[in-house]
Amino acid sequence: MPSLKKYRVDSHFQLAKVNPSDSPFLEGDQAAQLEEIDALAIELDEMQNLLHAEGRRKVLLVLQGMDTSGKDGTVRWVFSRTSPLGVRVTAFKAPSEDERARDYLWRCHAVVPRNGEIAVWNRSHYEDVLVPVVEAWIDKAETRRRYAQINDFERLLVETGTVIVKCMLHIGKDEQRERLQARVDTPGKQWKFSMGDLEVRTKWEAYQRAYDQALRATSTEHAPWYVIPANNKRHRNLMIARLLMKTLRQMKLETPPADPALRGMIIK
Amino acid sequence: MPSLKKYRVDSHFQLAKVNPSDSPFLEGDQAAQLEEIDALAIELDEMQNLLHAEGRRKVLLVLQGMDTSGKDGTVRWVFSRTSPLGVRVTAFKAPSEDERARDYLWRCHAVVPRNGEIAVWNRSHYEDVLVPVVEAWIDKAETRRRYAQINDFERLLVETGTVIVKCMLHIGKDEQRERLQARVDTPGKQWKFSMGDLEVRTKWEAYQRAYDQALRATSTEHAPWYVIPANNKRHRNLMIARLLMKTLRQMKLETPPADPALRGMIIK
Repeated sequence: MPSLKKYRVDSHFQLAKVNPSDSPFLEGDQAAQLEEIDALAIELDEMQNLLHAEGRRKVLLVLQGMDTSGKDGTVRWVFSRTSPLGVRVTAFKAPSEDERARDYLWRCHAVVPRNGEIAVWNRSHYEDVLVPVVEAWIDKAETRRRYAQINDFERLLVETGTVIVKCMLHIGKDEQRERLQARVDTPGKQWKFSMGDLEVRTKWEAYQRAYDQALRATSTEHAPWYVIPANNKRHRNLMIARLLMKTLRQMKLETPPADPALRGMIIK
Repeated sequence: MPSLKKYRVDSHFQLAKVNPSDSPFLEGDQAAQLEEIDALAIELDEMQNLLHAEGRRKVLLVLQGMDTSGKDGTVRWVFSRTSPLGVRVTAFKAPSEDERARDYLWRCHAVVPRNGEIAVWNRSHYEDVLVPVVEAWIDKAETRRRYAQINDFERLLVETGTVIVKCMLHIGKDEQRERLQARVDTPGKQWKFSMGDLEVRTKWEAYQRAYDQALRATSTEHAPWYVIPANNKRHRNLMIARLLMKTLRQMKLETPPADPALRGMIIK
C-alpha cells in the first residue's frame, strides 16, 4: 500500500506542498478502482459490525474541506455498504442562535459517537478556527486558545475510548471552479450551489492559510490530520477508505468471548 | 464580611481541618439571619436579570456533598426569589445506559448554561472522581487523567464566558446520622430516604478521602472550590448566597448601553 504517513500532518507540514492532483492510491484501470472501493466498503461494513459487537469503543471521522471538495461524496461512497444502524452522519451548518449561546464545542460534544458507533462529521468544530480566522472575528491569542481547547477536547474523547480520524479533502482552486461551474450549469445539481460559495471562493488563499495553520496546530499524536489529495474523486474515496480500514484494523476489534453460561444451552 | 478565602481550596488544603460546625457567616439572631438570606435572594434575582440583559456571559454553580448535606435545600433557599426563567437546575443521578456509552462529561456539557443563564448542578461530573474512586473501579492513573480532563473542560467553559462557582457542602458524620434518622422517622420525609444511603454511609471515610483529593486536584485559578461548613443550614445558605453575590458583583454586569437608534422614538 502507498504511504499514508506522507500525508499525515506533522509540525513541518505545509499544505501548499501537497499537490491536490496526486493520486498514489489509484492503481489499475477505472473498473479495478471501482471494484476496490466496493470491496473496501464491504469490509468496512464487517468492521462496523465488529465495533458494534464489541461495544466498548467508537470511531469519529472528521471531514473538512473547501466547498465542492467532496465531503458528501466521500460519505456516499465509503459508507455505501455500511448500514445506517451503526454510522451516524452529522453535517454542521452555520451555528444557530442556541448554539452561539454556548461554547462552540457544545454542539459537537452533543453528537459524539456512542460505544459501537462510527460518527462522521461533515464539517466540524474546525469551522470555528477557519471562518472566524479568515473573517478576523478572533485574534491570534484567541485562535491559539481554541487550538488548545480543541486538542484537549479530542484528548478527552480518545482517553474515553474514541478513535479519531481527521481528513482534510484537498482540492485545487481550478478544480473548484470546474465543480462550481458544473453545479451552475446542471439543473439537477443547482440545489447544491449557493451564491455564498462564490463569496468564500474570493477568500481562497486566506482559507488555505487558515487550514495550513490549523492542521499543524491540531494534528496530535492522539488525533492526527491527514491531507487527502481530492482532485480525483476515486482517489479521494480510495485513500479515505484505506485510511479508515487501517485504523479499524489497528483497533484489533473482536466479538466478546464465548459466554460459558450459554454453553450447551438448549432453547425449547 | 467574614473571609471566604479561608474556605477556598488550595494546594495545602485538608478537608479534615475544616470543622463542619463552623459558622463564621452567621450573625445576629435567627430572625436577622433569615432576613439576610431573603435580602440576598432578592439581590440575586436582580443580578440574574442583569446577567440576562447583558446576554454575553453565564454562571455555573456546582453543588457537591454527601447525602443529606443540603444540596436541594440550598437551591430552595438561595434561589427562593429568582425566577426559574433564568435559573436551570440539573440533578445528576447514576448514569443511564445512554450516558455510560459516552465519556462522562458528555451529559454535563449538554446542560451547560447558555448566555444569560445561571445553571445549578446538584451533583456533577465530580461524581465520576468520587464513586469510581471509592469503589476502586478506576486506578490512580485514570483518576489523575480525569482530574486533568475536568480541569480542561472547565477551562473551556471559563474561556468561553462562563463563571464557575464550586461548593462542597461539608457536614459531619454525626450530623448525617441525625438527618437520615429524621428522614426515617418522619413519614413526610421518608421519600427522601433510600436504603442505598446507608450503604454509602458505611464508606464515609473513603468518601472524605476521595473528596479531599479531588478538591485539591481540581481547585484551579479559573474554577476554585469552596468548602461550605454545612452542619448549620442557615450558615450554609448564607455563605453560599454571599459567595454567589460576590462572584456576580465581580462580573460587573451592566445592561447594554442605550441604543442611539431608539433615541426619541415615538411609538404610535
